[in-house]
Amino acid sequence: MKYVMEDPWKIIEDGYHPEDNRLYESLMSLGNGHMGHRGNFEEDFSGDSLQGSYAAGVYYPDKTRVGWWKNGYPEYFAKVLNGTNIIGIHVYIDGKAVDLGQIQPKNFTRVLDMKNGCLDRSFTYDVHGKSFDFIIKRFLSYDTPEIGAIAYQIHAKDDAVIQFAPYLDGNVHNEDANYDEFFWENCSQYCGPDYGTITMSTKKTGFTVHTAMKSTLHSKAGLVTEPASYKSDDRYAEHLYESHVKAGESVTLYKYFSLVTDRDHDISKLTAHGKTKLEEAAELGFDKLYSAHTDKWAEIWKEADIEIDGDVAAQQGIRFNIFHMKQTYNGEDPRLNIGPKGFTGEKYGGSTYWDTEAYCLPFYLSTSHEDIPRNLLIYRYKHLDKAIENASKLGLRGALYPMVTMNGEECHNEWEITFEEIHRNAAIAYAIFNYIRYTGDEACLSEYGLEVLLNISRFWADRVNYNPYKDCYMMLGVTGPNEYENNVNNNWYTNLMASWTLEYSLEALDWVKKNSPKRAEEVLEKYTFTDSELETWKDITDKIYLPEIEELDVFAQQDGYMDKEQILVSELSSEDLPLNQKWSWDKILRSCFIKQADVLQGIFFLSDRYDIDTKRRNFDFYEPRTVHESSLSPCVYSIIAGEVGYHNKAYELYQRSARLDLDNYNNDTDDGLHITSMAGTWMSVVYGFGGFSTSDGVAKFNPFLPKQWNALNFHMLFRDRLLVVGIDKDNVTIEMVSGDPLDIENL
Amino acid sequence: MKYVMEDPWKIIEDGYHPEDNRLYESLMSLGNGHMGHRGNFEEDFSGDSLQGSYAAGVYYPDKTRVGWWKNGYPEYFAKVLNGTNIIGIHVYIDGKAVDLGQIQPKNFTRVLDMKNGCLDRSFTYDVHGKSFDFIIKRFLSYDTPEIGAIAYQIHAKDDAVIQFAPYLDGNVHNEDANYDEFFWENCSQYCGPDYGTITMSTKKTGFTVHTAMKSTLHSKAGLVTEPASYKSDDRYAEHLYESHVKAGESVTLYKYFSLVTDRDHDISKLTAHGKTKLEEAAELGFDKLYSAHTDKWAEIWKEADIEIDGDVAAQQGIRFNIFHMKQTYNGEDPRLNIGPKGFTGEKYGGSTYWDTEAYCLPFYLSTSHEDIPRNLLIYRYKHLDKAIENASKLGLRGALYPMVTMNGEECHNEWEITFEEIHRNAAIAYAIFNYIRYTGDEACLSEYGLEVLLNISRFWADRVNYNPYKDCYMMLGVTGPNEYENNVNNNWYTNLMASWTLEYSLEALDWVKKNSPKRAEEVLEKYTFTDSELETWKDITDKIYLPEIEELDVFAQQDGYMDKEQILVSELSSEDLPLNQKWSWDKILRSCFIKQADVLQGIFFLSDRYDIDTKRRNFDFYEPRTVHESSLSPCVYSIIAGEVGYHNKAYELYQRSARLDLDNYNNDTDDGLHITSMAGTWMSVVYGFGGFSTSDGVAKFNPFLPKQWNALNFHMLFRDRLLVVGIDKDNVTIEMVSGDPLDIENL
Repeated sequence: MKYVMEDPWKIIEDGYHPEDNRLYESLMSLGNGHMGHRGNFEEDFSGDSLQGSYAAGVYYPDKTRVGWWKNGYPEYFAKVLNGTNIIGIHVYIDGKAVDLGQIQPKNFTRVLDMKNGCLDRSFTYDVHGKSFDFIIKRFLSYDTPEIGAIAYQIHAKDDAVIQFAPYLDGNVHNEDANYDEFFWENCSQYCGPDYGTITMSTKKTGFTVHTAMKSTLHSKAGLVTEPASYKSDDRYAEHLYESHVKAGESVTLYKYFSLVTDRDHDISKLTAHGKTKLEEAAELGFDKLYSAHTDKWAEIWKEADIEIDGDVAAQQGIRFNIFHMKQTYNGEDPRLNIGPKGFTGEKYGGSTYWDTEAYCLPFYLSTSHEDIPRNLLIYRYKHLDKAIENASKLGLRGALYPMVTMNGEECHNEWEITFEEIHRNAAIAYAIFNYIRYTGDEACLSEYGLEVLLNISRFWADRVNYNPYKDCYMMLGVTGPNEYENNVNNNWYTNLMASWTLEYSLEALDWVKKNSPKRAEEVLEKYTFTDSELETWKDITDKIYLPEIEELDVFAQQDGYMDKEQILVSELSSEDLPLNQKWSWDKILRSCFIKQADVLQGIFFLSDRYDIDTKRRNFDFYEPRTVHESSLSPCVYSIIAGEVGYHNKAYELYQRSARLDLDNYNNDTDDGLHITSMAGTWMSVVYGFGGFSTSDGVAKFNPFLPKQWNALNFHMLFRDRLLVVGIDKDNVTIEMVSGDPLDIENL
Repeated sequence: MKYVMEDPWKIIEDGYHPEDNRLYESLMSLGNGHMGHRGNFEEDFSGDSLQGSYAAGVYYPDKTRVGWWKNGYPEYFAKVLNGTNIIGIHVYIDGKAVDLGQIQPKNFTRVLDMKNGCLDRSFTYDVHGKSFDFIIKRFLSYDTPEIGAIAYQIHAKDDAVIQFAPYLDGNVHNEDANYDEFFWENCSQYCGPDYGTITMSTKKTGFTVHTAMKSTLHSKAGLVTEPASYKSDDRYAEHLYESHVKAGESVTLYKYFSLVTDRDHDISKLTAHGKTKLEEAAELGFDKLYSAHTDKWAEIWKEADIEIDGDVAAQQGIRFNIFHMKQTYNGEDPRLNIGPKGFTGEKYGGSTYWDTEAYCLPFYLSTSHEDIPRNLLIYRYKHLDKAIENASKLGLRGALYPMVTMNGEECHNEWEITFEEIHRNAAIAYAIFNYIRYTGDEACLSEYGLEVLLNISRFWADRVNYNPYKDCYMMLGVTGPNEYENNVNNNWYTNLMASWTLEYSLEALDWVKKNSPKRAEEVLEKYTFTDSELETWKDITDKIYLPEIEELDVFAQQDGYMDKEQILVSELSSEDLPLNQKWSWDKILRSCFIKQADVLQGIFFLSDRYDIDTKRRNFDFYEPRTVHESSLSPCVYSIIAGEVGYHNKAYELYQRSARLDLDNYNNDTDDGLHITSMAGTWMSVVYGFGGFSTSDGVAKFNPFLPKQWNALNFHMLFRDRLLVVGIDKDNVTIEMVSGDPLDIENL
């Protein structure tokens, strides 16, 4: 089923679909890095809806709920917090509230305009035998992130009394609260003729969020800047504007709102700051605010756009992914990270998974200036102490970064994931390597990289065990990236990346010793690293056990993989799929089926180590056994398929991820969007079709064009240059739009 | 710390210990197979207490609560239900309620009299400057299981007005309710001068439990049979009796109560039946009721007692275990089973674990008449359809009996246990074999054994996978009896017992074909077993993979066991123990440490297959790696230690289980007692020290006496004979107290 109309720049809900409202609310979410909300209606709506307004970095540690407690589980699970509804406007026509849940609109469209970063809605609404056209535009300023605005216009075809009651409402809850708890406290409200505010603080974490609103009414009768009346109640503030319109006339309410938090401002100045921002916005007016906002989006697209000629669905898909990535995280605040649902829903809680390092970092490396991806590294550096604490809770030395976190503390509570999916640690080490390889910023090693690397390495060295019978180091009881295996021994990927981390850490230490010896000394002393400890690391890298399937000359995903019944996905009946809905967990675990790239993830990360034949053999073995039931899977397979010459396969796999949410493949878009996998889709274009790679400061391209397309152009930043790579059926062009000369290889 | 005084027949709380009240309440629980309650006080108590009254077979399917749902989890977890408080008596002295939480008693004792099956309590209570001696006796009739009685006597040393308000109170809750739900509905009460009642039904399951009470007051002033007043309220009924006593006089309230359920009676006759039983009891009077009750216990002890000379603590321990086993399950109702906490607490819910077949069945075989253990087999037969359904939910053929159940449906929800600890199936098959070996009742195969065996075998045959590379059958993704390993491949015990089940099922089928060919045909047809399916079973038993540690010539607990770092328990620091409280779950899993007998469990079950050297080698390897953190562990090790000649070790291991609850080793006796492990303790005496085994109708003994004891006598039933085996430092005597001649071997 198609949910949205195909369009290169727009996501269009054409016609009214209340049965899928939550899905459209997810797709049409707005965000600007600082705040975001789902594509909810402004006016009253009695139909099904998931109201969601979120402020970046504001979370609540909800008390963990599990069936059977295991030693080591965290007590709290940090949740993205639904906050004050700031977009709300009650609208009354001749005294009756407009409610699309009660009266079905005509000519309904809801449009996410990705070029301009705004949500447009229009419909015809008939009530009391009268008819009205509604046109509503809303945006969250990318230029002034604490500000948003709504233009709510009604064109009356009949005489009527139209009332607008813009409001703020803090009486909200999280659907995913574990104990139906209200997460806010110390709530207060103010409502006067000048403006209205709600201030609320989160329980336990004590974040204070202050929201404020101010509106103006424009009609033939002139401009109204003060409400006719106003009222407030517990956690509620409301202004009332009234207009008597004649047939043929229009009336527009402009609602401006600000959202400021004590994460960014001294709490004593919070209210004053919110008011200032609000007044400045109202002063400037909707059009100028909007224009500054769209200018910012134009800049983003200039540096990050991907154009696909000959396939509107693919064009729409890739832009949708880029757009939501940029809405979720703008990289300006190193305390923030990229939540799996961004500002589009509550599910999964936490904000940070290994997805950030493994999937999102490459996107930000190529579409942002250096300080943005650098902030992602600093985020983990700031959590190093907590990662060391986390490892020690499991009885291990060094640092174990959490599976899911807001503030560096572990949130997750499935033993097979929380305690065992430890490969996440390697992704964080790899991100440092990857960042330096891309940017050349080796100095970051001294500043923060080395400390992180050494402590992760210490963890690996403690987590492996030496096997005297086989004279090798093993790693028992892990879950690899393929979460359809739990508690396995010697996951190839984990062992490989652990060993790689040790190697790279020793190299990094050498670099710092050479370039900043005092700093090296300082770090070694701070954590009391000794020579003998570092020698053990060398021994581990020499003797790490990497399982193989000898008869097939491929890497073995883990010990005993070939003891499983070997069946291919193609041999499954369609009734078996998706496995995660159709099979019991034990059946999935003992099957050979793979959820997402695991051996292939290692081949992708350490691509330089493996020749094309090795890659192809492993692809040939593993891809037919992979069900891609993680949104993070197809992109990696797609990239390697492209590399080994399976162009059709690469395209087919790309298609699985590009429109995942737009076409609701996993039937869960109503919960929110799969934000982090969107970066994977981007990678399959730039790394896959574009064949991008880099080493020694050289940008390399080995592109191919899917035969379904006429041309592909992608914009990317590389070491302060803006490149546009164009691939059509005959030629590849690499244009340097700005920046100094650069070595580029077209392989 | 010692909680109870040593005494051969009594469990004595000497002195008042409110801080450990829950522990004593557990230890002093009363039960008669039909109902039971914890050793709560009758009068008001404002101190810490876990009030618990339970009716056998009455349960509530509480909505499951888990952190992360896995496909296949059951929606409900059946819980033992706390029901109407039937023992309650408010006691007032000069208008003030007696409450040991408010006024500390003197000379307090609470005594569980195991010989007579009653709870005695006495103390001195001073209030208003006056002093009173209390003597209270309570029992649940083993002769008339729907009846219980209390004699509550107060001896006044000063003049006083003493009031007794015996009551029934249905306002109870389960501490372990998942959503703080009240589990009862349709509650009604009656209170008149004749008697009081509470009737309540369980939500969802709709069991109706009717309780009734009637009291008489005896004092110098004469007998009072009607209360001075009475009252009722929601789920509450109360009688009031009043007595003006002079210094030196005594007053005694006799409270009789009945508990009847619609599990046993037509609901329309429930109230009438409860009333009849109650009136009969009151008519008979306390002393006669009590005498009939103690006669029953005398019969039990005649057939089941174990006497240990020279070690009062051991004597007390073994009788405590026998006593609670007999209180929990009397085997008269094939719909019932042996809950892990019996009537002593709420924890674990469910009533039936594999403990029943693996540990409890041997106890009932030797201490009850044949129909009792037979009922345990019929219980599972009646759940066969649900076991088939349970397997099919996991996508498998045949029958998978649940991990935890009340009615045949799975209750448990940890994937690594629910879906993977499937060895439980083998214990159910083994119980059939074990029962027949003991009783000679091969006819049970035709009647119900064969159906169960064939369907369990079908499950095993579907659950293994043929490995073409190694030409063998494997079983992947299981949890063995040692739950400190999860999701392992080829657990030796599980593979062994699966293969044994297939072999035994084919033998059983041959027997039925020969002795009851029509019935064999009928069973094969009913489940459409074909020759080719049965041939596959033969192939599996021929080619089952049983891992070994070749260099040590011992069986390997599972694939990869020797890849673990090999440390012994003796090398652990005391700070590491118990592992399940000190180590995170992943650390436990990847360690070599063993929670409970696993390989050794297989050697115990199939003892005939292994010579003494093999047993000793495996014991020598596994015992030093076993932490015995399951109450079911030491008994099996103790038996094998005895067999291979490690008599001191056998005694040491026996000691760990014999007084587990009495000495609160696991620090959890307050939750309730470890009922099923009590049967294991019994086994370590009869199978271990007694060296009992049987085959071909011969009872064999190969006894030894721990050097700490002067003599050991145990009573046991074997094929309608009552035997008393006596072992002292010089001699072994086997006395046949009753029954026909029998072949006995003293090895």
